[in-house]
Amino acid sequence: MSKLVIVGTVAFDAIETPFGKTDKILGGAATFIGLAASQFNVNSAAVSVVGGDFPQEYLNLLSNKNIDISGIEIVKEGKTFFWKGLYHNDMNSRDTLATELNVLADFQPVVPDSYKAAKVVMLGNLHPLTQLSVLEQMNKKPELVILDTMNFWMDNALEDLHKVIKEIDVITINDEEARQLTGEYSLVVAARKIHEMGPKYVVIKKGEHGALLFSDDNVFYAPALPLEEVFDPTGAGDTFAGGFAGYLAKTNDFSFENMKKAIIYGSTLASFCVEKFGTVRMEHLKPEEVQKRLHQFKALTQFEIELT
Amino acid sequence: MSKLVIVGTVAFDAIETPFGKTDKILGGAATFIGLAASQFNVNSAAVSVVGGDFPQEYLNLLSNKNIDISGIEIVKEGKTFFWKGLYHNDMNSRDTLATELNVLADFQPVVPDSYKAAKVVMLGNLHPLTQLSVLEQMNKKPELVILDTMNFWMDNALEDLHKVIKEIDVITINDEEARQLTGEYSLVVAARKIHEMGPKYVVIKKGEHGALLFSDDNVFYAPALPLEEVFDPTGAGDTFAGGFAGYLAKTNDFSFENMKKAIIYGSTLASFCVEKFGTVRMEHLKPEEVQKRLHQFKALTQFEIELT
Repeated sequence: MSKLVIVGTVAFDAIETPFGKTDKILGGAATFIGLAASQFNVNSAAVSVVGGDFPQEYLNLLSNKNIDISGIEIVKEGKTFFWKGLYHNDMNSRDTLATELNVLADFQPVVPDSYKAAKVVMLGNLHPLTQLSVLEQMNKKPELVILDTMNFWMDNALEDLHKVIKEIDVITINDEEARQLTGEYSLVVAARKIHEMGPKYVVIKKGEHGALLFSDDNVFYAPALPLEEVFDPTGAGDTFAGGFAGYLAKTNDFSFENMKKAIIYGSTLASFCVEKFGTVRMEHLKPEEVQKRLHQFKALTQFEIELT
Repeated sequence: MSKLVIVGTVAFDAIETPFGKTDKILGGAATFIGLAASQFNVNSAAVSVVGGDFPQEYLNLLSNKNIDISGIEIVKEGKTFFWKGLYHNDMNSRDTLATELNVLADFQPVVPDSYKAAKVVMLGNLHPLTQLSVLEQMNKKPELVILDTMNFWMDNALEDLHKVIKEIDVITINDEEARQLTGEYSLVVAARKIHEMGPKYVVIKKGEHGALLFSDDNVFYAPALPLEEVFDPTGAGDTFAGGFAGYLAKTNDFSFENMKKAIIYGSTLASFCVEKFGTVRMEHLKPEEVQKRLHQFKALTQFEIELT
């Protein structure tokens, strides 16, 4: 079975949306990535850090999903990373009400020995130097390194971000961030400029408008499934990345054609994530539900036109 | 050959974009719809009005595209409708700098006798009562009536708009307008509510993010082709509608499956329209260019996933 290293936060989130609010619940990039990747037949390990306040039941939840948690450091005297956010009526804009770095401030990731030869590494959103440190711990260059990042690092650690971007194969980034990183409004031009920074594949996430995959002159587009209701967008981007990485790790095929399928799996899983608060929907997601929604995706996008 | 009635403005536009500006050039909804529909083997007639200032060469241009112009009234002593707009850097937002209704203020559309039994009617953006008056002139209920409208009529003639919406089969509307018309943020819910107002098919245009087609529980999505550069978005929505209507008129098949193809043709033609100022690109568009771009559309959206 393929091995997948997942680096990112394991955290507490408190979320308020027009539909309700939560106290501190399970969140974090590595959590959502791991839960999405657990839909595939892969061995994955989360590399992260939590505080002594982090409930054992959350760790068990990840373990029970076949996620190796030996790389999640527990800092007994510390507190777990906490994010609190408020979504507005359109669900596309949100205010961050609180960000408490806590144990994340001094996080030194440690890749478990048994994962140092993993073929696929998914670097969830974290300080670029933390992401780079994980790559440096690998025994050899992984066959596929996927990186997710955000505008915060462009504002605060751009030089370091460029260092890690140079070392990766796939970047996932949202449309506004792609524009910020390149100074180009056209996503086609932005993708080409990012391509020149290192990554062979550029995935631009457009939220409710779907995602684009670029590689050289190839481009592929997957919409987001139109939903009656987006209940809580938290984790959707990480779930997309986790589905993408999990599918690629399982199939062990890193061609453009297979990446298209990985994008579809990522979009499909993300469409579930937003249906309930936090990780709730992903915890109980069944393979037959995923299959059913893949059929919907096909109906949504596939057409027959005779071409000459 | 199928007959298609096209109702809408034939006008002067003056456009300023980050790439340049124009004096008064050929524009108008019926113009763009007609040019797009001329890509298909249909007999179409434009129903509109212009002033004595409207150049014969523009009328000839439409005629040469096999568009019947006998329904374009020429008010010799009047001036042609004029719109002036300024696009911002993102090309998604624009300021209207001038709107001179001129002859449009008293426009009474007259459908040519030879088109009163046309199977397909495309009602371009105009006052809802003007749109309704065209339907009332038809000998019998057309097999397919497509309506385009905009927020201006929701603000200023909502009751009349509801009257014409009740009589049509397909509405094309942009996402913000769909939300305004229904008070629903979710496009899935908005489409259902519009469906209840009358139209069996609801097409929601999302500009650079593509278009959605809804009918009962069916939904289909076509992206906009990712472009290096959008030079001038003027007329893209009308070109989309014209391609949609033209394809349906030609094929004479108004099933959901065929509407999917019509959406793809509409999106494809719109992707050309924005490449140059005004109608320039559409005037010289060759069938083989369209075929080539349809191939690109297929590559952009089609994937193979084995489902159970």
